[in-house]
Amino acid sequence: MPDAASARVARLATVDAEGRPHLVPICFAIEGGTLYTAVDEKPKRTRALQRLRNIEANPTVEVLIDQWDEDWSRLWWVRLRGTARIVEDRHAVELLVAKYPQYAETPPAGPVIAVEIEERSEWTSSPS
Amino acid sequence: MPDAASARVARLATVDAEGRPHLVPICFAIEGGTLYTAVDEKPKRTRALQRLRNIEANPTVEVLIDQWDEDWSRLWWVRLRGTARIVEDRHAVELLVAKYPQYAETPPAGPVIAVEIEERSEWTSSPS
Repeated sequence: MPDAASARVARLATVDAEGRPHLVPICFAIEGGTLYTAVDEKPKRTRALQRLRNIEANPTVEVLIDQWDEDWSRLWWVRLRGTARIVEDRHAVELLVAKYPQYAETPPAGPVIAVEIEERSEWTSSPS
Repeated sequence: MPDAASARVARLATVDAEGRPHLVPICFAIEGGTLYTAVDEKPKRTRALQRLRNIEANPTVEVLIDQWDEDWSRLWWVRLRGTARIVEDRHAVELLVAKYPQYAETPPAGPVIAVEIEERSEWTSSPS
């Protein structure tokens, strides 16, 4: 079973008002049924961020956590679909800082995207 | 400048008829202004593949190629937006087999997704 929650990076897909997909790599933490990711940018620039504009227009998002390996018998992915909200959440920031020592020096300055996970699917290439 | 074309894995985002995003990790090859990725599944299962259904409903896709590193001064991503078509393309399969020795034993059995790249954006955390 893939240990998706401790993976270091994931990719977040949102959709803009015209139905076009948008992708960003994210740091994330999962607690309960919610995935959290923070916006690193300063507030001024934050307002222009495509992912935030997209979530306001369409809160349905997908997150992919996958492992690449040149040995294709060791591939796996976990796909999470859910509804995103843009929040201010100190506890979420604490979760992220606890997972990523890189955040200790400069905690994320922007808001948090909280994804309520509604569907989880997974795949692994290994037979076990 | 990130060497995106030689990256080993990328993520493809498509959008379904209801406007929901869908993400898959992909192997890919780029030639000229086109990115190619193949469907590994056998034809019978292929018809049910979400990414193909989505492209038929909405050909606008995005591909993200990114590098994760625990040293956050070494992060980069390249984002490609384009229009996808589902094709049978032996040359594309040859490109993929040339890039991925793993395909030599079992070349991809399904159709090829060809993405005409219309927009490219990139970001790197390194100052140089």
